Amino acid sequence: MKKHNYSAGPCILPQEVLQEASQAILDFNNSRLSILEISHRSNDFVAVMEEARNLVLKLLGLENQGYKALFLQGGASSQFLMTAYNLLEKKAAYLNTGTWSSKAIKEAKFFGEVEEVASSADKNFNYIPKNYQVATDADYFHCTSNNTIFGTQMKEFPAVDIPLVCDMSSDIFSRQIDFSKFDLIYAGAQKNMGPAGTTLVVLKEDILGKVSRQIPSMMNYKIHIDKESMFNTPSVYAVYITLLTLRWLDKKGGIAGIEKTNEEKGKLIYDEIDRNSLFKGFAEKEDRSLMNATFNLTDESRKDQFDKLWKTAGIDGLSGHRSVGGYRASMYNALPPESVKVLVEVMQEFERTA
Amino acid sequence: MKKHNYSAGPCILPQEVLQEASQAILDFNNSRLSILEISHRSNDFVAVMEEARNLVLKLLGLENQGYKALFLQGGASSQFLMTAYNLLEKKAAYLNTGTWSSKAIKEAKFFGEVEEVASSADKNFNYIPKNYQVATDADYFHCTSNNTIFGTQMKEFPAVDIPLVCDMSSDIFSRQIDFSKFDLIYAGAQKNMGPAGTTLVVLKEDILGKVSRQIPSMMNYKIHIDKESMFNTPSVYAVYITLLTLRWLDKKGGIAGIEKTNEEKGKLIYDEIDRNSLFKGFAEKEDRSLMNATFNLTDESRKDQFDKLWKTAGIDGLSGHRSVGGYRASMYNALPPESVKVLVEVMQEFERTA
Repeated sequence: MKKHNYSAGPCILPQEVLQEASQAILDFNNSRLSILEISHRSNDFVAVMEEARNLVLKLLGLENQGYKALFLQGGASSQFLMTAYNLLEKKAAYLNTGTWSSKAIKEAKFFGEVEEVASSADKNFNYIPKNYQVATDADYFHCTSNNTIFGTQMKEFPAVDIPLVCDMSSDIFSRQIDFSKFDLIYAGAQKNMGPAGTTLVVLKEDILGKVSRQIPSMMNYKIHIDKESMFNTPSVYAVYITLLTLRWLDKKGGIAGIEKTNEEKGKLIYDEIDRNSLFKGFAEKEDRSLMNATFNLTDESRKDQFDKLWKTAGIDGLSGHRSVGGYRASMYNALPPESVKVLVEVMQEFERTA
Repeated sequence: MKKHNYSAGPCILPQEVLQEASQAILDFNNSRLSILEISHRSNDFVAVMEEARNLVLKLLGLENQGYKALFLQGGASSQFLMTAYNLLEKKAAYLNTGTWSSKAIKEAKFFGEVEEVASSADKNFNYIPKNYQVATDADYFHCTSNNTIFGTQMKEFPAVDIPLVCDMSSDIFSRQIDFSKFDLIYAGAQKNMGPAGTTLVVLKEDILGKVSRQIPSMMNYKIHIDKESMFNTPSVYAVYITLLTLRWLDKKGGIAGIEKTNEEKGKLIYDEIDRNSLFKGFAEKEDRSLMNATFNLTDESRKDQFDKLWKTAGIDGLSGHRSVGGYRASMYNALPPESVKVLVEVMQEFERTA
């Protein structure tokens, strides 16, 4: 019996992906070689990289619209830096919705002025600011679509006439959005896409080449585009598992298919949080994330009792981030609704034994 | 039957490492979770990271001497940039021994003046320059210990009074060197250490903090040291397989143990190249690499015949890099001597059927 894996990331991956990934470690494509020991320039791996890049654009509905998909290294943390390195000439506008936005802002300041258009720091980031103005003379607007730590999620994105840049690390491929509104999307793989070790960047090439600074090769999107993510040795295995996960998603009906399941899971957990008087949700209702549900006990003195219950039920990774405390149920694409049902049952059992 | 894997990198890994790595994809440490889906902050993975960092220092003989070991992302290509970002204030001295040195020089020039102390470009990098002078006022001296593409290897390193920085991507852990001569060593994992996706950096902390520029977080060695390689989500699986490979090396008697095997393999292949009139070595004899033996046919018209022979014998990845042509036998730590014997037999069969 597998555990019910609520880890916030790296996180649960589909069982069939793990099976295939395990086999490829021993023998990849019947080549009598492991996926770990083949050249990244081999035909077998070049095919993996190409299919992964193409499948990303297909699943996002961004084929034939001037977008390129890249698999780089260094996580979203490197993208905090690279976006500014490549796009920030004078001033950029950032929406601050939590830890990751704040980190992105910090790195951008190495390269120019940052205008924070709004922040929800006043309420420990439990909501998404609305009705803010984005300066029309900013080089770009940056936002974070889902806030893993605080459990909030942007339901709408502002219409801006400047390039729209979004960190979608924790909710990409989970819900239908008009992705063509965005000029640059980045996401660490380790939530809905694959294991830690590779980072997806999807961007429109025409936003590049507008800053005056010289950009070192590894920081330069243009070079990675020209080399089709093979400027240097990519994270071979992470890209391969990402491909397996994207294929799994495609078979599930793509984003439209998984969105239904994610909504079902979200309804299960949030209905219980709202119904059960022993729990209270952390995020404002209208901004609740379908990926990370954050909640606290109404009576903290009963923490040990609740913790014992969910651990006994085979649930793992439910403890909240230290910034929020309480609990966080991370329900990425690969988490089956059955795992959420088990958690809801545990919450109900907790109520019965109160 | 596995192939005889001569891939230049990513390259062969020990069979027992692959077995254990495959199992950990399904169930890691009997946790009922895959190594791919656990948090990098989990006790199980923190233990992996700590053991890997400690084992690096133990194997290199660098314990308790002020060195730190880091596992970062982005390959040696990111280190070309990071070394200069962190260390280059005015001028740095570089030895140019091939493609990778040239790339390191190119990236360093974004940050300051580069003095190329010597280059072997005049002979397509088939030798290691000697008797060069390193400016005593340079911020550091950078060299590449082994040149994968050209098959040359530095047998000695200059005594300098400035920080000594070395790219050891393709021969670290393969031979005994006084590693304490170096102030910063870096190496992509995908040769002697593990799969693509993580990069080892071993450095003395006291060389940092001497440049006046501000350094973005992901580029800043000090931050990665302070966060013990966990400033952001590391490449979990690549670090884990690196640990398995380092444990394997430790059981083999460490570097002293593997060095004997590597010398044996080198002697087998180079003796045959020198004896067999159908082949000629590419690199100068005194500079020959024990990791990558480069050689050409004396009669290129017989290429198809030789290629058919080695492919039939189950050999893979022997084709030379386009910069050199001919053949390259990459013989990293995990390549068994039996594979070299098979290649030598093929070379002898080629001679008999001439």
